[in-house]
Amino acid sequence: MKSRTLRLILRELSRPRSIWELIPRQDSHLEELHSIVGELLKQGYLEVKEGKLSLTPKGRDLARDLGISHRREGFFETARTRCVTLVSFLPEMKIYEMIASRRPPIRAEFDQGYMRPKDVFFRLVVMYERGDLEGAEIAVLGDDDLLGIALALTGLPRKVEVFEVDENIVEFENRIARQRDLKLEAHVYDFRRKLDGRWLSGFDTFVTDPVETIHGLKLTFSRGAAMLRDGGSGYFGLTRLESSLAKWREVQRMLNEMNFAITDLYPNFSVYPLEGNIGSYLESCEVYRAFSSLSWPPDADFYTSHLYRIEAVGRPKPLVAPDEEMMEDILHDEESWVTP
Amino acid sequence: MKSRTLRLILRELSRPRSIWELIPRQDSHLEELHSIVGELLKQGYLEVKEGKLSLTPKGRDLARDLGISHRREGFFETARTRCVTLVSFLPEMKIYEMIASRRPPIRAEFDQGYMRPKDVFFRLVVMYERGDLEGAEIAVLGDDDLLGIALALTGLPRKVEVFEVDENIVEFENRIARQRDLKLEAHVYDFRRKLDGRWLSGFDTFVTDPVETIHGLKLTFSRGAAMLRDGGSGYFGLTRLESSLAKWREVQRMLNEMNFAITDLYPNFSVYPLEGNIGSYLESCEVYRAFSSLSWPPDADFYTSHLYRIEAVGRPKPLVAPDEEMMEDILHDEESWVTP
Repeated sequence: MKSRTLRLILRELSRPRSIWELIPRQDSHLEELHSIVGELLKQGYLEVKEGKLSLTPKGRDLARDLGISHRREGFFETARTRCVTLVSFLPEMKIYEMIASRRPPIRAEFDQGYMRPKDVFFRLVVMYERGDLEGAEIAVLGDDDLLGIALALTGLPRKVEVFEVDENIVEFENRIARQRDLKLEAHVYDFRRKLDGRWLSGFDTFVTDPVETIHGLKLTFSRGAAMLRDGGSGYFGLTRLESSLAKWREVQRMLNEMNFAITDLYPNFSVYPLEGNIGSYLESCEVYRAFSSLSWPPDADFYTSHLYRIEAVGRPKPLVAPDEEMMEDILHDEESWVTP
Repeated sequence: MKSRTLRLILRELSRPRSIWELIPRQDSHLEELHSIVGELLKQGYLEVKEGKLSLTPKGRDLARDLGISHRREGFFETARTRCVTLVSFLPEMKIYEMIASRRPPIRAEFDQGYMRPKDVFFRLVVMYERGDLEGAEIAVLGDDDLLGIALALTGLPRKVEVFEVDENIVEFENRIARQRDLKLEAHVYDFRRKLDGRWLSGFDTFVTDPVETIHGLKLTFSRGAAMLRDGGSGYFGLTRLESSLAKWREVQRMLNEMNFAITDLYPNFSVYPLEGNIGSYLESCEVYRAFSSLSWPPDADFYTSHLYRIEAVGRPKPLVAPDEEMMEDILHDEESWVTP
């Protein structure tokens, strides 16, 4: 049984629900669910009373051991809307905003740029709803967004490890982690280098905002895949403006080959502000040469990305082996118009 | 230039916007956008005034000819939420609900079942936002949801053609279309039969809720692909409960092979009520044998599906040729637990 599935089911049964109420609150195929629920009943973690499944004391202990706490609301529906809300995470977001206001300056040489704090939390809410936050071991691959801090501030993940090439970010995150006693550790790591054996298959989920060249994507997903346990999941942002539809198709083919299925894909889910951020290096980018004659400087935050969630069918298969290096330029191709 | 891209750009420029405001309101790669905007300026459809792009009188004529009307709101963001709203389409939804309340009874032999009216409209709103509704020629492949009526009621598509095996639905939709003078035509068609040559490459978008066996999916997507123009898009629902993650991966591989990229994927986007609907045949399904000992009858609408949007990179390539027949059982496999 996948650890995430178990955590999801225990969380959703923290109040009694019928099997019919449970089905849409998790995402296993009915046959898998049937065997999981059967097993949990047999082992005495669940019981059925008047048509409702609920946790036994033994089940509640297991849920607690796995890091499950009270259910917060992330997705909701009204008569006229379907929404993602970050209202359950506002206390954490306020602290995050305070911390992020003192973030290290971005470095153009690493193609850095960060999304708005609320987009960090919208992403976190999706992870929470999909069962990839509570009790999970999470690898953040590249963290100019300081997502690692946001995740750790919730107190929900079992651990968060950040892998980042910029030592300023690594030091910043480790200092915050010490000050606030967070389950967060950041490491200096250039993805192009070999992946240390101790990180292999050690995580439930990875999160990244990859460089959008085919080489860069292949490398980043391979590092993420190598870090995942069987059946693990991944989150990443991809733009349309720096990646053509043909590249999207190629990326999806690659992910499929790595044994992943795409489970969620939210358009325009992250906005990158210009000021003090990507705006500082735009004049060295192709986009400046192309559009500055129409209007300059930009009067709107035009850089947005789309959020993918992927999940491995069994064992993820990295296309670049963990001990393989790839020292070429992974930042540039003919589509990288907003990359300095 | 793709017709959808042109329509999207003209719609978003119905009020003056800078190029920076325009970028996130469409989804071309920056290089494509650069060449499209350049071309539209050169041909006199657009002009630049004080850094804002706007339609010239000639551009406004073109927009009108392409079926563009005032911009409605479908997606919105607040400080704490991101939402899809159907509020701009409430008048149409009220009429739709009245019509749908007299729909023909569902037929288990075709594995029918319909989603809630609001889910029909949430889907329609996504199509609207993504530029696949206004001025578009739309094929609906199987229409127990009566989506064709909802689409046509907005008055926005250039035409809607429904292809449906159940002659009761076909007659019902054609009667409504005549009564209300809708740009909607329904045809009796069993996808397993050859596709009539006059439907080849005739549509901008297809919409379907396929039977979830691999054979059924391959056939349905092939029919949809054959009906699309180059660069066309498709929408479909797929469940997790009747399709394992391994099948999802296989479906995605198949779509990729057909030259499609997935552009959007919204989890739990459609709910199928039980009463007078799929509830009427559940006792003939595997799900009854598996779960009725826990709780029966079901006390919640457990059947939900996830909405995909796909887009062809150039020419879509059907895996089943339009003149090929596939007369085997496409309704059942070992995962079809809610299929009678």
